[in-house]
Amino acid sequence: MPAPEIDDGMPLIHMLRPLLSSGGRLGRRARVPCDSWRFAVETNTLRDWKTIPARCEKYVGNYMMGGHYRSDSRAVVNEAISYAESLKLSGEGKEVWVFDVDETTVSNLPYYAEHGFGAEPYNWTTFGAYANEASAPALPETMRLYKRLQALGIKPVILTGRREDKREATAKNLARVGYTGYEKLLLKYATRIPPGWLSCVHAFLSRTDELMTVRSAIECRPQDARVHSVEFKSGERQKLEDAGYVIVGNIGDQWSDLLGAPEGDRTFKLPDPMYYVG
Amino acid sequence: MPAPEIDDGMPLIHMLRPLLSSGGRLGRRARVPCDSWRFAVETNTLRDWKTIPARCEKYVGNYMMGGHYRSDSRAVVNEAISYAESLKLSGEGKEVWVFDVDETTVSNLPYYAEHGFGAEPYNWTTFGAYANEASAPALPETMRLYKRLQALGIKPVILTGRREDKREATAKNLARVGYTGYEKLLLKYATRIPPGWLSCVHAFLSRTDELMTVRSAIECRPQDARVHSVEFKSGERQKLEDAGYVIVGNIGDQWSDLLGAPEGDRTFKLPDPMYYVG
Repeated sequence: MPAPEIDDGMPLIHMLRPLLSSGGRLGRRARVPCDSWRFAVETNTLRDWKTIPARCEKYVGNYMMGGHYRSDSRAVVNEAISYAESLKLSGEGKEVWVFDVDETTVSNLPYYAEHGFGAEPYNWTTFGAYANEASAPALPETMRLYKRLQALGIKPVILTGRREDKREATAKNLARVGYTGYEKLLLKYATRIPPGWLSCVHAFLSRTDELMTVRSAIECRPQDARVHSVEFKSGERQKLEDAGYVIVGNIGDQWSDLLGAPEGDRTFKLPDPMYYVG
Repeated sequence: MPAPEIDDGMPLIHMLRPLLSSGGRLGRRARVPCDSWRFAVETNTLRDWKTIPARCEKYVGNYMMGGHYRSDSRAVVNEAISYAESLKLSGEGKEVWVFDVDETTVSNLPYYAEHGFGAEPYNWTTFGAYANEASAPALPETMRLYKRLQALGIKPVILTGRREDKREATAKNLARVGYTGYEKLLLKYATRIPPGWLSCVHAFLSRTDELMTVRSAIECRPQDARVHSVEFKSGERQKLEDAGYVIVGNIGDQWSDLLGAPEGDRTFKLPDPMYYVG
């Protein structure tokens, strides 16, 4: 194989500048410390990243396995409980709190510790096999919030980007570590065929006017099922509100758990420097 | 003065528990490290706080004055510039980037270093006097972004919660440190009487049907001018879009700069552990 030609469109003269100068194109992209990379990740400035920076694997490992991750989680849950205790409930039992699953109710650290803490790209096959084991431990801070909310009379709703084919394993895992008595367990559909697709096709076939036919054909596209997390989760939260529930709180490790109306009255961002879900 | 009676509504028996136990009301509210407090602040979990925890004054001071604050800012701006350089512009000059002022274009560290880095409650009088000096230095990272955007052909729009009575001082400060050639400088109105109030009252007086009269009377209420930052800033961004601008980016140190549709195509959260604006 011939050596690839280097042509990134950058004038050669730039190559003579020091790599870590304070100005210029290269300087601007100088490495920031892993701690500042994490700041940009946790504040939703860095998006759509596939793996953590290779140089930060040790940093992220120390963060996750040492006390830092637990301490950050504790600060978030302390505030969530303090907020929940301040609420005046209606007494009609319609108040719910939305919980994400991965890195929220349960911790997948046993998996990620063996996969570079996010330094390896996401692998559907190996992570799927791990999820099917239903062996993930609870995130202790989230468990503390979960139990306190139940004692207060606020019902937990589990809302996860895991697909329906993981329903049994997910329910088993949650029950095994003590998450019981939730109001609903909502997962993404398992295939790329969206719910209502059959009735959509039926409507398409029964229409006669040309414009409506074209429009409904577009609406029926099975690939619409590849819905992003924000769209899926905010849609499910809207359904909860339409059903009369009041979402008083919403906790997750990804901004895609917490953005998109209706977000819930308050949102609580747990730490997760290992992966990004958009 | 008599000593105040201690009655915080907590049963006395709780006083016998260890202050830092892992369970129970006191344990749950045990102090988290200042670094974890900052995590909860920067991810919009902690809200409506008036001052930093007294025990964190030294921590926040070290964060702001040492390299950490600058390093976190650098990570955010590196990503913003990388994103801006990836954009395909229309060539019609309608792309704008929204900048907040305090702790975004300019740094008020000279003021906050003398006021406990947020350990003292916000003081309109002393901060107002400082702002009128128009002496705040530029945040160097934001200046780098500002200049790069102008070179790319993206127009800066300055959008601040400072009131109109600070327009002259703010413009003078921005110009003095090198922020020139912006498209607009948008500030909050100076009084509690909203813009359009006079015409609102005129419409109210000229209406005869009862329903409309009641409705317009409500709409004319001067206290509506006490608009929160999210409402004010998203309203101004909507006006920009209505005028044909495309907000490709939005940078600020407060979540109230970045939340509320239309947010802009991408948001960039600069660090600020010193104060909260809701």
